Amino acid sequence: MRIDIVTLFPEMFENVLGHSILKIAREKNLVQYHLFNIREYADNRRCVDDRPYGGGPGMVIKPEPVFNTVEAIGQQTDIPSKKILLTPQGQRLTQSIAKELAKEPYLMLMCGHYEGFDERIRTGLDVFELSIGDFVLSGGEIPAMVVIDAVVRLIPGVLGDLDSAINESFSCDLLEHPQYTRPADYRGMKVPEVLLSGHHQKIKEWQKDHAIKRTRERRPDLIE
Amino acid sequence: MRIDIVTLFPEMFENVLGHSILKIAREKNLVQYHLFNIREYADNRRCVDDRPYGGGPGMVIKPEPVFNTVEAIGQQTDIPSKKILLTPQGQRLTQSIAKELAKEPYLMLMCGHYEGFDERIRTGLDVFELSIGDFVLSGGEIPAMVVIDAVVRLIPGVLGDLDSAINESFSCDLLEHPQYTRPADYRGMKVPEVLLSGHHQKIKEWQKDHAIKRTRERRPDLIE
Repeated sequence: MRIDIVTLFPEMFENVLGHSILKIAREKNLVQYHLFNIREYADNRRCVDDRPYGGGPGMVIKPEPVFNTVEAIGQQTDIPSKKILLTPQGQRLTQSIAKELAKEPYLMLMCGHYEGFDERIRTGLDVFELSIGDFVLSGGEIPAMVVIDAVVRLIPGVLGDLDSAINESFSCDLLEHPQYTRPADYRGMKVPEVLLSGHHQKIKEWQKDHAIKRTRERRPDLIE
Repeated sequence: MRIDIVTLFPEMFENVLGHSILKIAREKNLVQYHLFNIREYADNRRCVDDRPYGGGPGMVIKPEPVFNTVEAIGQQTDIPSKKILLTPQGQRLTQSIAKELAKEPYLMLMCGHYEGFDERIRTGLDVFELSIGDFVLSGGEIPAMVVIDAVVRLIPGVLGDLDSAINESFSCDLLEHPQYTRPADYRGMKVPEVLLSGHHQKIKEWQKDHAIKRTRERRPDLIE
C-alpha cells in the first residue's frame, strides 16, 4: 500500500512512522509512506492560509496550495488515490472502516491545521471526510497517525501473529476479556485460577464470559 | 499543568510534542511534558511483557515494571497525578471530558502496547480508563497524543486567540459552518456572496443556518 500524507507539519510524522508496527510494515515493504509539505507547492510559501471570509477567529487553508499539492502528486503515479480529509465533521472512524481502507492500494491523507480547510477543497477534490471522534484537535496530523496505525496493522503480513488482529476488542463486537501474565501472584493480587488450570475448554468459557460481562458493563451499546 | 507519559516508546512523542500548539504551550511554560520509559524501571529491562495466562496471541505488559515506574514518579512530587490508562475498553473521549481534564494540575498518561496491560495494573492502580474510539491500534501512544492535544489547547493562555477554542465543532454541540478564505473565485468555485457582503447580521445568520444544516445532514445524533 502507498500512503501519502499531505500536511503543513511533515516533521511531526517521522518518529511515529519510524517505530513499532508502522516501521515493521515499511521494512517488510508492505507499505510506503510519502510526506508532502503543502507549503512547498504554494504559489507563495509564506501564504498558505488566510483570514476567513465573514470574519471569525483563526486561519483557513487556501484552496490553491492544496490543489497544487494534489495535482503535483497525481503526476507521479497513474494509480488513483483514495483521498481522506481528516476533519471533525467527517464520518466517524470505526474498525469496519479501517478494514475497508486496508483493502485500498493507495491512500492520501490530507491534514488541515488550526481552523481547517477552505470549503472548496472539500467540494472540489473527491475526498472522503473522516473524523476520529467528537473532540477538537489542533490539526489533522495526529488523527492521520490514528488512521495509519489502524489500517496498516490490518494489511496481510504486517502482524507476525495474524491472530492478534482478529482477537482484539471490536473485531467481534465485544470488548476484550481481562488479560494476565506472570507472576501468578503480584503483591497478593492473584491471577484467576481457571487461567492457570490448563483446561482449554474452561479457559475459553471464562474468556468469553468475561468479554461479554465487560462489554455489558462498559459498552451496552455494542451488544444488540 | 504537568503531563507525564509512561510508555515503552518515548521516542514516538518527541516530534509531536515539539510542534505547533503543544510546543507553544511548553514554551509559554503553561505545560511541562515528562517522558518515562517503562523499560528503565523494570527489574529486568529485557522482560517487560510475557505471554498471557490461558493462552492466546501476543504479549501482555507485566504488572511489576508499571508499578515500579508509577512509584518512582510518585517519589518526585507531592502532587497526586490523575492517572489515565489509554485502552479501547475505556470511556470514550469527548470534548467535555477534555474540558474536565484541562482543569487538572497533573495528568499521567499510561500507554500499553500490543496486547495491553495485565489486569492488575487496571485494578491495583487508581486509573481512569479512556478510549479515543472503537478501533484497534498498536498501542496507547497515538491515543495519548490525541488526549494531550485535545487537553492542552484548552488550558487558558495556550491559544493566542481564545475564541478559536470556543467557536469550533462540538464546543456548542454543532458542527462548524463551512469556512472560506481568499480568493473569492478559485477556478470558478465562488465564495457565497453573503460572506463578502460585510453585513454582519446576515453573515451570522448564514453561519448558524449552515452549522445547523450540516449537523442535521451529517450528525443528526448531535441535535436533540
